[in-house]
Amino acid sequence: MISIVILGTGNVAKHLYDAFLITDNVKILQVVGRTEDKLLAYSKHTEVISDYRYLMDADIYLIAVSDDAIAEVSKKIKDKKGLIAHTSGSCELDVLVPNQRRGVFYPLQSFTKGKKVDFLEIPICLEAKHHDDFMLLQQLAHLISDKVFHISSEQRKTIHLAAVFVNNFTNHLYQIGSEICAEKKIPFELLQPLIQETAHKINTLNPHEAQTGPARRGDMTTINNHLGLLENKTYKEIYSLLSNSIQKDYEQEL
Amino acid sequence: MISIVILGTGNVAKHLYDAFLITDNVKILQVVGRTEDKLLAYSKHTEVISDYRYLMDADIYLIAVSDDAIAEVSKKIKDKKGLIAHTSGSCELDVLVPNQRRGVFYPLQSFTKGKKVDFLEIPICLEAKHHDDFMLLQQLAHLISDKVFHISSEQRKTIHLAAVFVNNFTNHLYQIGSEICAEKKIPFELLQPLIQETAHKINTLNPHEAQTGPARRGDMTTINNHLGLLENKTYKEIYSLLSNSIQKDYEQEL
Repeated sequence: MISIVILGTGNVAKHLYDAFLITDNVKILQVVGRTEDKLLAYSKHTEVISDYRYLMDADIYLIAVSDDAIAEVSKKIKDKKGLIAHTSGSCELDVLVPNQRRGVFYPLQSFTKGKKVDFLEIPICLEAKHHDDFMLLQQLAHLISDKVFHISSEQRKTIHLAAVFVNNFTNHLYQIGSEICAEKKIPFELLQPLIQETAHKINTLNPHEAQTGPARRGDMTTINNHLGLLENKTYKEIYSLLSNSIQKDYEQEL
Repeated sequence: MISIVILGTGNVAKHLYDAFLITDNVKILQVVGRTEDKLLAYSKHTEVISDYRYLMDADIYLIAVSDDAIAEVSKKIKDKKGLIAHTSGSCELDVLVPNQRRGVFYPLQSFTKGKKVDFLEIPICLEAKHHDDFMLLQQLAHLISDKVFHISSEQRKTIHLAAVFVNNFTNHLYQIGSEICAEKKIPFELLQPLIQETAHKINTLNPHEAQTGPARRGDMTTINNHLGLLENKTYKEIYSLLSNSIQKDYEQEL
């Protein structure tokens, strides 16, 4: 049995909490948060605290707070003997208070409030200062996920950068698509199956093979027509830049 | 029973053929193609021809060839009495030879060779010169899809433009993500669940609500770190432009 304390009450904290709550061999001793109303979602099954003086001794402290609060929270628990791990994709291991048992437990997923996820499929990226601590994090991660990876702080930075492209920027392209449709009173749901299929294809094809469209074909007539249709200056720039970038990838094949 | 002839042997032709072949109340009379080897995939259950002199009389001729060949193919069948419809997202209705019964039967999906799709979920965008012809296309479309829409040529252009953003450009972002990972020997499969979830979210949230990430939060430290990590000049430009565009959307909320 691994005993843990979760520090934080946001999306990542809640999804980890839900996953561990229904898992054998893990005991969530406490959830720590600043405000009572946010702790309410945890108090039915678990002790919740706001005052660090009541913090219990646990095997692992999982810090699931915003990036800029991680250092501060880790300072508050620096006298505990347990392993302290943060759950952030973009923060280095060393953001945690030094001279401690330290690690990273980063579930690579975009969590939405109220939307359940299948944790078994979520990659968990682990890192630790000491080998024994790594083994402990690995044991914990395998209790909820089939996909556990040893990822250094430097690799994690790269993953986070790549994630910005495939998640944040992709969502912004959805936003642009929805605005373009709204202007002409076209329901955005028309594009839903295409969006799902575009993502689904990547499970079986690599993105280079899966690429289609006017830029891929070098079809300048359609590209110029599209640029003519776009009124928003920024969206025009995005269209040009992405089309040029695609064309560079395939210019030797045309 | 509606009788149809499919002109073309590419991806769209094959997916439409497969859908109609297993549908009651449609009879595929012929498939027309230029080369014997491409017609092979159709010849087991259907008559295939390359010579337009043998073209039969059908209720509907579906032209599923590349955009720049549509006009030429429509000329070759101009003496037929049946309704002629092309299947392209980006071509106007008027690309078809005039003074004819003309229409558009555009299935809004990105088709991949060998990858089956659920046609019931695919939006089919219809247009026709005459009301009776529209009703006939609608009857045909409803035999394979639950999502049938009346879409004008102008709206279809807009949809195609939006589709370039949510499909072609999104796939290019996957490509950039995979390159960034490959450089640091990180398996791209780590990003797969995130990619699927990003697309999946859009079924329940609108893209504006679903947006997350450093640009959404106005987190300039992370943005600058990421720009520092990117070596490819074009990818750096894409990162800046998309981040600025996201920040514009949310600047009033920050």
